[in-house]
Amino acid sequence: MSVTYPLGFRAAGVTAGFKPSGQPDLGVLVGDAGTTAAALFTTNAVAAAPVQVGRDRIGRGRVRAVLVNSGQANAGTGSRGIDDAMATSAAFAALIGASAEEVLPSSTGVIGEPLHVSQMCTAMPTLVGALSADGGESFARAIMTTDTVDKQASAHAGTFRVGGCAKGVGMVAPSLATMLAFLTTDAAVAREDLQRLAAGCLAPRFDGLTVDGCTSTNDTVVLLASGAAGREPVTPGTEAWRELSAGFDEVGQSLVAQLIADGEGATDVMIVEVDGAESDDDARRVAKAVADSPLVKTAVFGGDPNPGRFLQAVGAAHAPVDAARLDVSIGGVEVAIGGVIPPAYFEPASALAQRARAAMKEAEIAVSVRLGDGRGTSRAYGCDLSYEYVRINGEYTT
Amino acid sequence: MSVTYPLGFRAAGVTAGFKPSGQPDLGVLVGDAGTTAAALFTTNAVAAAPVQVGRDRIGRGRVRAVLVNSGQANAGTGSRGIDDAMATSAAFAALIGASAEEVLPSSTGVIGEPLHVSQMCTAMPTLVGALSADGGESFARAIMTTDTVDKQASAHAGTFRVGGCAKGVGMVAPSLATMLAFLTTDAAVAREDLQRLAAGCLAPRFDGLTVDGCTSTNDTVVLLASGAAGREPVTPGTEAWRELSAGFDEVGQSLVAQLIADGEGATDVMIVEVDGAESDDDARRVAKAVADSPLVKTAVFGGDPNPGRFLQAVGAAHAPVDAARLDVSIGGVEVAIGGVIPPAYFEPASALAQRARAAMKEAEIAVSVRLGDGRGTSRAYGCDLSYEYVRINGEYTT
Repeated sequence: MSVTYPLGFRAAGVTAGFKPSGQPDLGVLVGDAGTTAAALFTTNAVAAAPVQVGRDRIGRGRVRAVLVNSGQANAGTGSRGIDDAMATSAAFAALIGASAEEVLPSSTGVIGEPLHVSQMCTAMPTLVGALSADGGESFARAIMTTDTVDKQASAHAGTFRVGGCAKGVGMVAPSLATMLAFLTTDAAVAREDLQRLAAGCLAPRFDGLTVDGCTSTNDTVVLLASGAAGREPVTPGTEAWRELSAGFDEVGQSLVAQLIADGEGATDVMIVEVDGAESDDDARRVAKAVADSPLVKTAVFGGDPNPGRFLQAVGAAHAPVDAARLDVSIGGVEVAIGGVIPPAYFEPASALAQRARAAMKEAEIAVSVRLGDGRGTSRAYGCDLSYEYVRINGEYTT
Repeated sequence: MSVTYPLGFRAAGVTAGFKPSGQPDLGVLVGDAGTTAAALFTTNAVAAAPVQVGRDRIGRGRVRAVLVNSGQANAGTGSRGIDDAMATSAAFAALIGASAEEVLPSSTGVIGEPLHVSQMCTAMPTLVGALSADGGESFARAIMTTDTVDKQASAHAGTFRVGGCAKGVGMVAPSLATMLAFLTTDAAVAREDLQRLAAGCLAPRFDGLTVDGCTSTNDTVVLLASGAAGREPVTPGTEAWRELSAGFDEVGQSLVAQLIADGEGATDVMIVEVDGAESDDDARRVAKAVADSPLVKTAVFGGDPNPGRFLQAVGAAHAPVDAARLDVSIGGVEVAIGGVIPPAYFEPASALAQRARAAMKEAEIAVSVRLGDGRGTSRAYGCDLSYEYVRINGEYTT
């Protein structure tokens, strides 16, 4: 159902020829007139051209469509990249009778390779002809790079609908970059409120996702609200707002789970829950440090808990950690209490170690870290570091 | 030659039985009366017991010996770990007629497993009997865990000598932790000046070393100055100080190079030089971010430069980066100029890409990052991420 599940959206995906594979590689999602937009962008200082253009256009407040190409990231392309993003979004806007400011360009693929502008413009009439209220699935497929499956989700939110799709498997898989996610609703939401929803509800979700700790030049999450299911704006503090937030949260969580399960070389997913931190930010730093640690990730791959690796990762997180109050459990098995690994863990045929190893054999590994009695919490989604990750990223030869 | 190359030191290494392999696992290094000491310790919030005890004793100003066991890290062991570090160092101190405060305990090995106190005490008389001015090499071997070779270095520093040895291959190799380094000189250096030398000269060197971005609970660098080659203290600002600094720098650099070459699974070494940063700290963040990036590390393993991965890593370094002024070269081949990857790089049979790939085939890969015209510089030593790293850390099953 994806991004066109809510009313008021049309989408399409076609093959423009950017990918050597001949798979669909140009997608578009268009909201009806009156659609509002909000977005979250990469924090990478080397931001791609479409991110720079997109930031500006979100600020101008008229965005209601996204044009996405996969194959070239249009990052590391300098002023030419900006020109290319402007030109292609303007060309598309003209075809749907909109202004360029209403179109947010988005790109994923090889960093540095210039956008294939003429190929893109050639494909646009076909793309516009294919626009349909059933086009969400073809859009979701057109934005894929080395994703092995498309990622779509939808939810009910009271009387409204929420939809979404995403792509991404690592910062770079054979040099194809980026996590992109697009979420829609047919509720009416003022632009500022939609941005608040993006920052408050979706940013922590997507920020907790880590395949390899790398931050792409192109990462983008876009929210579009068409208002097609009721023109009265949904505002913070109301029951409708809570329902809508829950709907976005459900779709965001589903997309994050689908993304991590398709992470490069991932054979196991780990969910790191941190609580008792002084702040949510501190909790997030610890959760990400654990999920990103190569030694934790190889331990997850190998199925051996090795509690010292978890302690190491927590302690190195650049967050306030009182070792004496630090508890760690894996699948509910306590492998560190008050910063101490129970000596029984190291006894021959230790029952504790056996239980911890059994917990590490689960396909989804639950790691729980308690830092103290603060109110800060966070959750990170990570995966293991496998031979396959090294193969995908190391055996790429042009 | 190692740590006993300078006058005024005795060392030894014996087999106490901590390692299942039966290799030497207990070492000691003792400076003559009057020796001064300085140290750098891990920044990990979950610091090992010997680090906590060591920090305190360095502060008290009487340290002149180090007692090192390999096999158990004495980390994640709580108050029992502190008691054990105190008891074993006190026992050793008594055997050499010193007080416990003169002995810095140091441990490396499995995190969480308690120290084997009685085994250690049983081996001490043999250890003391083996103390010798030629004992540096046996000490260097006794501190090894999964190191495949011992790491020793020495240098002349004017009329003085500098020696050193180190161990470490990753935070944890089959759960054996830590980078430890011990450096000695026969110059006389006041304790505060020796600490200044440690912070100013050696900290940047060792801080630039990264096998897997993980920070051990036990990392320790100890400097000992015996004064045996001249009782007149060497003080900052003098020619002797410059010579001594250069000697420590030479030994430190050699040890760092030996450590990275023996990094877990490392097949290639990369040296990342950053200049033009606003500060040395900013430069260091960028250098480490590049050397730690799994996507850069797998690119080094695969021998394919993939310039976008380097741009990504620089941009994600949490340092001020102006993409428009960012130049990156690999082995002298410019793969990004002003933040732009030359489009020629992506042409079929690109000569630029071929030259960059040739540079990536070198055993030592030189990555140069220029951020602007600031005066901040830094250098990081890293290695590739190989199948072997995943095997070593993932295939550990007890």
